[in-house]
Amino acid sequence: MREAPGTAPDLGWLSFNQMTCDPADLSLAIEATAKGGLQWIGVWRHKIKDAPVEEFGKRIRDAGLRVSGLCRGGMFPALTAEERQHRIDDNFRALDEAAALGTDTLVMVCGGLPAGSRDLDGARQMVVDGLSAMVPHAKARGVRIGIEPLHPMYNADRAVVATLGLANDMAERVGSDQVGVVIDVYHVWWDPQVYREIERARGRIFGFHVCDWLVPTPHMLMGRGMMGDGVIEIARLRQAVEGQGYTGPIECEIFNQAVWDAPIDDTIARMKQTYLDWC
Amino acid sequence: MREAPGTAPDLGWLSFNQMTCDPADLSLAIEATAKGGLQWIGVWRHKIKDAPVEEFGKRIRDAGLRVSGLCRGGMFPALTAEERQHRIDDNFRALDEAAALGTDTLVMVCGGLPAGSRDLDGARQMVVDGLSAMVPHAKARGVRIGIEPLHPMYNADRAVVATLGLANDMAERVGSDQVGVVIDVYHVWWDPQVYREIERARGRIFGFHVCDWLVPTPHMLMGRGMMGDGVIEIARLRQAVEGQGYTGPIECEIFNQAVWDAPIDDTIARMKQTYLDWC
Repeated sequence: MREAPGTAPDLGWLSFNQMTCDPADLSLAIEATAKGGLQWIGVWRHKIKDAPVEEFGKRIRDAGLRVSGLCRGGMFPALTAEERQHRIDDNFRALDEAAALGTDTLVMVCGGLPAGSRDLDGARQMVVDGLSAMVPHAKARGVRIGIEPLHPMYNADRAVVATLGLANDMAERVGSDQVGVVIDVYHVWWDPQVYREIERARGRIFGFHVCDWLVPTPHMLMGRGMMGDGVIEIARLRQAVEGQGYTGPIECEIFNQAVWDAPIDDTIARMKQTYLDWC
Repeated sequence: MREAPGTAPDLGWLSFNQMTCDPADLSLAIEATAKGGLQWIGVWRHKIKDAPVEEFGKRIRDAGLRVSGLCRGGMFPALTAEERQHRIDDNFRALDEAAALGTDTLVMVCGGLPAGSRDLDGARQMVVDGLSAMVPHAKARGVRIGIEPLHPMYNADRAVVATLGLANDMAERVGSDQVGVVIDVYHVWWDPQVYREIERARGRIFGFHVCDWLVPTPHMLMGRGMMGDGVIEIARLRQAVEGQGYTGPIECEIFNQAVWDAPIDDTIARMKQTYLDWC
């Protein structure tokens, strides 16, 4: 359990999201995270290959690490009922994988508009339906479903859940303790309602991610910065989240080719320092 | 006065925002807009050159056109009081220019964070202060100040007014009939609160802009699409705005190199057709 809010960031809760170094495979990411003295790692599903997921779960435990969250479930909206069921079935597998890795949190990137569709309300309903369909399986596996609102610039193609307010609305509509939110500063920092919605999320904050917003942003997808290199009030957001009782790991997740091109050990060292300085 | 909401779009209210064809100077834009049979043009300040603004006002009237709005005032946040006053003085000149062009609306791009600053609340306060400082001069010139919320991806560097909700809050805080909002579908379409906030904006909607959100978006600044080429429910938004009593011109404003590269007459013809088809 972390100290009271307002205290300095604690390296014991910092988690290395493996997409902060895409060139590394999962085995290397595990090794580098442990070597860097961290206790947590964030895992992506598409990186689980060359060995069964249970094997990776064992390797992570053997390295003295815990998995802060598995990315990603979601991608619910689709044009046909058959395809939507297909996506839900895949989310069941994601829950199985999360349990096998020993994490209690599946991070959800809920999906954008179906191809060719302009029906935003309809797509948002499909997200709520998909989340609801996941609840019994999530309970059975002991895995929580964390709805991650994405920045509105991804509304069309990645997540129609464009604000923390909408993620809170959806969690309330599903109405299960199994469903909450994951807050990434990159996606929510601009929102005039963010502090109010963090308060509203009390009790259902399942994850907290950090990075920074660069000015100018070099790329819509690959333009994230290391903490301190941008303009987000990261420490203020962390304290707000912790002020609502969040005591879990803090994942650093950066999509940026320049960061990816650096040696993984250097990236982890820099992440640790900027976390202490800016989070 | 336009027909009741729910009716088809009327070309008599379509306005050609001159930045839909950046290569054309203002004289050519005036000529092409009139030749295209339109009655309205949207003007940008940086295009007023080679002749005094009063001269352009006369040319526009002589061409049988009216100016739907002048872009742009704003850019309030700055690190020093002196620089902020400098920006406000420039906004006074923008009001003078709007009056000289014969338009009753100055469109405000309110500005991002001051260089090197992370103080988002502070920057937003500077916007409210700047708007308030403009009110007496705006009244004297008979020009309305339209706060344009910009897409959150421009929050850091162009407009800390990231939502229509915040624009409404600011207009209420300034508390003058002279201050309202300008709604561009590109900036607000993703917002789960947009229809509620359009209702709240009743009586202070000073402008309505259309274009489309392309998937994928080719560029953060220059990635707008012609109506129908993207995923925005434009007609629904138009009807919502008109449902709140908006009866003014509808500006088409597209920043996109491919659109800019087309001959201006072709662009205006295509704009007219896609407006009828999709707005």
